[in-house]
Amino acid sequence: MRLSEVQAYYISGTDPHQSEYMPDHWLNRPFISGFTGSAGIFVVTLGKAALWTDSRYFIQAAEELRGTGIELMKQRMPETPEPAQWLAGSLEKGDVVGTDYACLSVAQFNQLKDGLTDHGLSVKDTGDLLNELWAGRPRLPEEEIFEHDLQFAGSKRSDKIEDILKYVEINGANSTLLTALDDVAWAFNLRGKDVPYNPVFVSYGFISKDLKILFVDPVKINSELKGKLQEDRIEVRDYADFFVFIAGLSSDSIVMVDPSKTSQAALEGIPSAVKIVEQTSASTLLKAQKSTFEIIHIRETMKKDGVAMVGFLQWLDQNVGKITITEYDVVEKLNEFRSKQSDFQGDSFYPIVGLNANGAIVHRSVTPETAAEIKAKGVLLVDSGGQYLGGTTDITRTIALSEPSERLKRDFTLVLRGMIDLSMAQFPAGTVGCQLDGFARLPLWKNQLNYGHGTGHGVGYFLNVHEGPMSIRQEYNEHTIKPGMVMSNEPGLYREGEYGIRVENVIVCSEKDEVDFGRFLEFETLTLCPIDRRLIEPTLLNDGELKWLNAYHQRVFDELSPLLDEEQIQFLRKQTEPIV
Amino acid sequence: MRLSEVQAYYISGTDPHQSEYMPDHWLNRPFISGFTGSAGIFVVTLGKAALWTDSRYFIQAAEELRGTGIELMKQRMPETPEPAQWLAGSLEKGDVVGTDYACLSVAQFNQLKDGLTDHGLSVKDTGDLLNELWAGRPRLPEEEIFEHDLQFAGSKRSDKIEDILKYVEINGANSTLLTALDDVAWAFNLRGKDVPYNPVFVSYGFISKDLKILFVDPVKINSELKGKLQEDRIEVRDYADFFVFIAGLSSDSIVMVDPSKTSQAALEGIPSAVKIVEQTSASTLLKAQKSTFEIIHIRETMKKDGVAMVGFLQWLDQNVGKITITEYDVVEKLNEFRSKQSDFQGDSFYPIVGLNANGAIVHRSVTPETAAEIKAKGVLLVDSGGQYLGGTTDITRTIALSEPSERLKRDFTLVLRGMIDLSMAQFPAGTVGCQLDGFARLPLWKNQLNYGHGTGHGVGYFLNVHEGPMSIRQEYNEHTIKPGMVMSNEPGLYREGEYGIRVENVIVCSEKDEVDFGRFLEFETLTLCPIDRRLIEPTLLNDGELKWLNAYHQRVFDELSPLLDEEQIQFLRKQTEPIV
Repeated sequence: MRLSEVQAYYISGTDPHQSEYMPDHWLNRPFISGFTGSAGIFVVTLGKAALWTDSRYFIQAAEELRGTGIELMKQRMPETPEPAQWLAGSLEKGDVVGTDYACLSVAQFNQLKDGLTDHGLSVKDTGDLLNELWAGRPRLPEEEIFEHDLQFAGSKRSDKIEDILKYVEINGANSTLLTALDDVAWAFNLRGKDVPYNPVFVSYGFISKDLKILFVDPVKINSELKGKLQEDRIEVRDYADFFVFIAGLSSDSIVMVDPSKTSQAALEGIPSAVKIVEQTSASTLLKAQKSTFEIIHIRETMKKDGVAMVGFLQWLDQNVGKITITEYDVVEKLNEFRSKQSDFQGDSFYPIVGLNANGAIVHRSVTPETAAEIKAKGVLLVDSGGQYLGGTTDITRTIALSEPSERLKRDFTLVLRGMIDLSMAQFPAGTVGCQLDGFARLPLWKNQLNYGHGTGHGVGYFLNVHEGPMSIRQEYNEHTIKPGMVMSNEPGLYREGEYGIRVENVIVCSEKDEVDFGRFLEFETLTLCPIDRRLIEPTLLNDGELKWLNAYHQRVFDELSPLLDEEQIQFLRKQTEPIV
Repeated sequence: MRLSEVQAYYISGTDPHQSEYMPDHWLNRPFISGFTGSAGIFVVTLGKAALWTDSRYFIQAAEELRGTGIELMKQRMPETPEPAQWLAGSLEKGDVVGTDYACLSVAQFNQLKDGLTDHGLSVKDTGDLLNELWAGRPRLPEEEIFEHDLQFAGSKRSDKIEDILKYVEINGANSTLLTALDDVAWAFNLRGKDVPYNPVFVSYGFISKDLKILFVDPVKINSELKGKLQEDRIEVRDYADFFVFIAGLSSDSIVMVDPSKTSQAALEGIPSAVKIVEQTSASTLLKAQKSTFEIIHIRETMKKDGVAMVGFLQWLDQNVGKITITEYDVVEKLNEFRSKQSDFQGDSFYPIVGLNANGAIVHRSVTPETAAEIKAKGVLLVDSGGQYLGGTTDITRTIALSEPSERLKRDFTLVLRGMIDLSMAQFPAGTVGCQLDGFARLPLWKNQLNYGHGTGHGVGYFLNVHEGPMSIRQEYNEHTIKPGMVMSNEPGLYREGEYGIRVENVIVCSEKDEVDFGRFLEFETLTLCPIDRRLIEPTLLNDGELKWLNAYHQRVFDELSPLLDEEQIQFLRKQTEPIV
């Protein structure tokens, strides 16, 4: 820091691609602070250090930071200062804060800069200062990249690139950077294994009418794939050459850049004579609206995932209270059942398995050491998903392990009502997620209950289980819900120290009708898996909700039973019996 | 324009205070274009002219512009260019567009400037060019200003000013401009008669710890009121001195300015050494949350307005089909019934009265010439309200004039369901209007129906019937719904050429409960007037909705009947009978 002439150093905790899962190489914050949660900002001055993280990680961070001298800053608590404010208290006016502009999106950079400026401080790009002190820093991964076969992808990469260029032109640009890893993967019909759960690979992309470039470590591409890319006139250049390339962009370039996905370093790496158009990435927008081809494959994938889930539920039902089962065994068992399905590629995230009070810890990661033993008492929350060549799944079921209390049944039924009400919603084109979010919450709100997370996130197609740009949550998101968008529908309720409830299906938006009053849209539920009838208090459901539930269960039975063995069919029949 | 060295002139159509109703003096757009609608932008170059207005006024504008050579620009139609775009087609790069910075809010100015800059044009303050050519231009009104008596206002102006200063300090400023007329009226407990319907007066205000100034034409303040203001250490200065005053602000001033309510001229009139804090006006925020004292008075006012409405409904019921009644007679009759109530000060807006197909014209202003005759056939939409010393009312009822068709009953009941569902909503503190808006629309959406206006606007307290900053509508509005906020709840449905339906009550947000899951809020319905039972199809209401409706009618009867004559009581009893 002294050599770089900065009085503080700021680590954003994100990588150059704004990834949810990062290669070890970019785990700067865990390396320097010891805190291993998925989100956090680390700031150090010449005298002290602090780490900001959110409520999911308050307990974990306190434990991991103990004895380090690093102060824990609890985000979104009224008494917690913002990093800029905290820095203002430690530094003098005119002091400079260093950070690595490569690991900060344009949007994050602007926010940081504005905050520092308000306090008389400035910001400066120092690059990654950890390089000097991180002995044995992991190298970037070199896993092989593979094609997402056209049989599953449905659209040729040349067609996707054409669509991207059309959107780029509509926005007055003639080229675009692809900087988020799933944007690159989608556009080029490629997948990788560089990080867990998300089938992406470390890369950048550049697309203009005359030039399509994939920036990636060349060792990751075998000669066959290289040949195919050449046929499609896609140049492969070294990942490290991306910054050299953008520095050489000619002054007649008009480059579309997504400020939430592109690093400040990349933005500043573009010559100032080049015009920039700031817009949500074309690839992000296009991949959010799944094609009919993709949706057909997702429906098939949901059958496979449903079969795996029914297998798991039946195994649990048969064995709980008889053999020793821990929460961690459930993590492994889910993977085991999914692995039997064709085209399965791995879990889409680390399953969340919470017995009773553990279910109320929303982002709990169970380990063999922390796993509780599951006995025939209480309720179990299981949130899991799979990556298949024909789609990505994400499902939560809350399972009764014994006769539930009246209050548990009431709580569960209110959550279920919200899930059903959102499933049945119909709405005009142009509706945004926060307008729909309330439909899933109203049954809870009317009983002074609520949940602290969003109701729905986009789901990728054999890609990231969390995908943008739209969402269904209380916070405003300008991206409207459009036909083909595949999202989760997952209201919940968490009673600290008692239990957690969540019911999650994946839904897809589709056209309903075009009438005098406009174009109307609706949702189709894609997930196929029974909802635990023992937890439902039927008198709390209205006629429409009960009808939906019985029809859903009938459909689950009809679609899954041909794929199950006799014992499983018996189990599923019981699980899907109509409620009258 | 040539003398001012501009190649185009832009008339925003608003006054220096961003008023909904403007004194004739500022009716620049109607004067120059002949178009008399309430919203529109007029732009003229040395060769041509155009007028932008929204769908409410397409027909009226086309008629009024006929033969003038002014091109009609239909706003929000895909083919319509923005003014900046249209200007770019007529002017040359580098050309300058003149406008009066006094009649453009800071926000509007920034939008205009950005648009022009994108097209290589610039903007310049020319002042009001119409002064030169408008012979006999009306002078600003000189109506007397009167006190809003403490008996109704509830809080002394000195206390309101203290509250404003507290908010100003929290936002890091030491003074604030008051530029919207209702902001000035509220802060100083004064009212006026300068424009129709809104009891405001042309003025500015300035508030700092040491200085409280009311800028107003001194002829409008009698010596008694002047004395009272002096007692409260409020200086009265001439309206015309406002710009001189702000130009003299000392450099240690930190002035809070509301960019949506303050003109660009006022902003630029402040010396550049003075620090500006852009924030929603303190007065706007404070007056939106009515005090308990005010709410008690509003409840009393609603009884008076309910008595007037029942009087009107009974008169209509008794006379329709028997004597000649036109839509315009309804406008007059409503005023007549309200005038009988104590503390009535006038209509709160020009009533919207629409028989059958006329009811589907959302912003229709009926005149004696255009008024249709009301016979005992069809359905009548009546939207009206009153100004009372103890509150402002706004109510819509849709009235059956003959046995309604099944479809009309179904349409009406779906609208009613939305109104009831929003009335019954409960929600956590922090909820914004667009999250609630869907509750009023869902019953319609589920039948592929919708309405094109907002669901709820703020309602003033013996002030503007349309008040900010919050709203309940599909568009995002960052201002959360807070206890004490009084709003309309007015879903509708409009079948072009057939009929219009709207049901509108005024509601107030109140505290429900503080529980483990946070602070919960709910609504109390304030309006007291029966909803036409003949239009309701009871089988379409769910149990909760039916229960709400019957309880509401019971309450209407209980609260109003002691204030009615025997004949009216008989009528109201029939109108409020429970539906079983």
